Amino acid sequence: MIELPNLKDTIIALSTPPGIGALGVIRLSGINAVTVANKIFKGKNLESVPSHSIHYGTIRKEKTIIDEVLISVFRAPKSFTKEDVIEISCHGSSYIIKEILDLCVSKGARLATPGEFSMRAFINGQMDLSRAEAIADLIASNSEAAHKLAMRQMRGGISKQIQQMRTELIDFASLMELELDFSEEDVEFANRDQLRILILKIKDHIESLIQSFKLGNAIKNGIPTVIAGRPNAGKSTILNAMLNEERAIVSDIAGTTRDTIEEILNIKGIEFRLIDTAGIREAQDKIETIGVQKTMEKIASSNILIYVFDIIETSIAEVQEDIAALSKGDHLIIVANKMDLNPYTKPEDYYNEQINASNFITASALNKMNIDYLKDLLFEKAIGKDIVISNVTVSNSRHLEVFEKTHKSLEEVVEALDSGITSDLVAMNIRNALHHLGSITGEISTDDLLGNIFGKFCIGK
Amino acid sequence: MIELPNLKDTIIALSTPPGIGALGVIRLSGINAVTVANKIFKGKNLESVPSHSIHYGTIRKEKTIIDEVLISVFRAPKSFTKEDVIEISCHGSSYIIKEILDLCVSKGARLATPGEFSMRAFINGQMDLSRAEAIADLIASNSEAAHKLAMRQMRGGISKQIQQMRTELIDFASLMELELDFSEEDVEFANRDQLRILILKIKDHIESLIQSFKLGNAIKNGIPTVIAGRPNAGKSTILNAMLNEERAIVSDIAGTTRDTIEEILNIKGIEFRLIDTAGIREAQDKIETIGVQKTMEKIASSNILIYVFDIIETSIAEVQEDIAALSKGDHLIIVANKMDLNPYTKPEDYYNEQINASNFITASALNKMNIDYLKDLLFEKAIGKDIVISNVTVSNSRHLEVFEKTHKSLEEVVEALDSGITSDLVAMNIRNALHHLGSITGEISTDDLLGNIFGKFCIGK
Repeated sequence: MIELPNLKDTIIALSTPPGIGALGVIRLSGINAVTVANKIFKGKNLESVPSHSIHYGTIRKEKTIIDEVLISVFRAPKSFTKEDVIEISCHGSSYIIKEILDLCVSKGARLATPGEFSMRAFINGQMDLSRAEAIADLIASNSEAAHKLAMRQMRGGISKQIQQMRTELIDFASLMELELDFSEEDVEFANRDQLRILILKIKDHIESLIQSFKLGNAIKNGIPTVIAGRPNAGKSTILNAMLNEERAIVSDIAGTTRDTIEEILNIKGIEFRLIDTAGIREAQDKIETIGVQKTMEKIASSNILIYVFDIIETSIAEVQEDIAALSKGDHLIIVANKMDLNPYTKPEDYYNEQINASNFITASALNKMNIDYLKDLLFEKAIGKDIVISNVTVSNSRHLEVFEKTHKSLEEVVEALDSGITSDLVAMNIRNALHHLGSITGEISTDDLLGNIFGKFCIGK
Repeated sequence: MIELPNLKDTIIALSTPPGIGALGVIRLSGINAVTVANKIFKGKNLESVPSHSIHYGTIRKEKTIIDEVLISVFRAPKSFTKEDVIEISCHGSSYIIKEILDLCVSKGARLATPGEFSMRAFINGQMDLSRAEAIADLIASNSEAAHKLAMRQMRGGISKQIQQMRTELIDFASLMELELDFSEEDVEFANRDQLRILILKIKDHIESLIQSFKLGNAIKNGIPTVIAGRPNAGKSTILNAMLNEERAIVSDIAGTTRDTIEEILNIKGIEFRLIDTAGIREAQDKIETIGVQKTMEKIASSNILIYVFDIIETSIAEVQEDIAALSKGDHLIIVANKMDLNPYTKPEDYYNEQINASNFITASALNKMNIDYLKDLLFEKAIGKDIVISNVTVSNSRHLEVFEKTHKSLEEVVEALDSGITSDLVAMNIRNALHHLGSITGEISTDDLLGNIFGKFCIGK
């Protein structure tokens, strides 16, 4: 059971990234925000200025001037949190920021918990839960596709769809509840055929939302892709060729890449997080043992594995043995590297039940031969032929989980209808579905849910 | 010859630190700041709003919403640069920030050069040069003493003193110039005795300013302090004991610390930048050779060297040999470590012309014996007994250089007066002194000077 922070306190936090910069912005929110700021500010009396106005002055700790600042005043409810909000724009020095935070705390403010400003915005009705969550995604977005997804959610894309589904369900639910009140009279207010059609329609819609998560998640979080293989197979050279630059240290000595390296490769707007690994082989010293162990963990948690082998040094049997040991099923691409040294290799020779034309390619990292083809194959394995961002693409794993639960409740409604089970069971399952859907937008919420969601936000948001 | 950027352009930059945060602030300054912002902002018409007001709306790239933002409007001359200034407070996402910067550039703004906002503030008469320089120091300050120094300078501490010296000198300079106009008549408007007294007074004052730089620089930049010694002497343990925490990896295997580590130790408000080093010895492999080379470079550039040796393993002759080789003169502290293992060692046995009671201490890092004494000795070597921040402490090396030049010119004035040389030489040297002093506040400035000063600022300031 998570305990929420006291929402009556006046809270404070640095809202800009930490570090040295021309400016830093410190945000105060709560009933005493203006009073607290006024106590340390020498300039205009902030109690008497209009909302959305900016004032120059100094912040003082007793007689010492801490900084020359601009203070912006936002009066409730016209602010992000719908409370009184003060923004102090000071010089971006860590010392000054710490001093101002300390000063405000000494005058009655409390340091904000992570996401507390957003939590207040939600609780005070500024935005629903899925929109508040979208802000965190928006801040973290670093590609056009991820930004587009987050912006759609922030502007209420998913909320609207959920509202609509809930409204339709609530209508039927009320009729069902009415029936229960008159249960002894055996009347049927809710048309069972119409209900069945509605439930199936909503269930279909939720299925498509669930299916959109694969893409949504890939857009939001990128796709962990591991490059593995025996020592000196050319894994780092393949990585560099894909990135088109020299990042990993490449040398002829087997075992050069000791630690794992992660690089971002953007293919058609999707981020692949390429992880180069130490070679898989019998480790020869303790440091290498740790390296190989790490490699196996990375392989297990990867979405796609690119297995690279040296076409000169590795036998067909060894390749087949490695593939069997890695057991990545369909999440695998096999690259026969160094084809420049042996252009006569026939891919077919390597085929077995796990290796075939759809996952095997020949390449030469050195000559960049087939590197573009490798990228295309990688994209296709992860995403399919093309990206189609539907009107609502789910990218939040909490939402996915809720949709899966809703789907299950709706399935139970259909089953109940089909088997002619009593109305109260149908009604209960509709209520469950409504409850689940409501937890996405926050119409239904608990302290635990809110604590979990906002606790993952950064401080100052 | 440095070319200054075109000051008529409207400029833009991110003013908060880069990185992910709740907020980022982008600043526009120049004649078209409001027009540019208005072109991408959907909300109120910014052309018609009052200065110092804040407006909510969206930033759009054609029809795509890039972000929901707050825009603050500052109308010339009531802004930091005395030009029209717009501040866009957006979500702190690198993608959004890049998009907004690109959009504004496409609408006619130009990316600001480092320090260009401050340069405009100076050129437009918002503040003199030494105050603009103080802002950079203020942002970088991370101790109370450094903050105090920078704030005094920003609030005009040094400017006032320079104004006063210049005023006094200018009075005499005018009289001297007048004499030159009447040179054929052999009159003396400027009283030579009074002039001599004034020059000596100013020269004294400048001497004290020059002397204050040692402290000012230490406060501002910290004191590079290298810990060196043979392998396994306990350098890292000494470092940890001074820091009171476990940072460097400490082990019994000689040669554990391969790279240099820098830690900040604050003694009485002064930051000592403690640099732990690889052991000095014949390197056994290539990586260690690089390490030892780095150590020697660090020792050369350090202000204070703490030489640590193992009292059990190192002979008196070896210690004396090391000290001679390191040749750090008075910038040296010698620590006989591991005294817990041999409490009978007599410091006197080690003394020679370079080692004596003022730079030799016995200690045990393990038991924290004499660690506080080591800190006191370090402070004394670097700063003296106590910090005395005089009314004006010089911390800027450009100012130091100017004061040294001014001092030289004033000395030449005195010499000229003493040797009864012609008035025109006296006048010329006074003019030189005036010129130098004026370059601190920027009354005298060149493009080169401005380019050099502001080029070192961060972008967005």
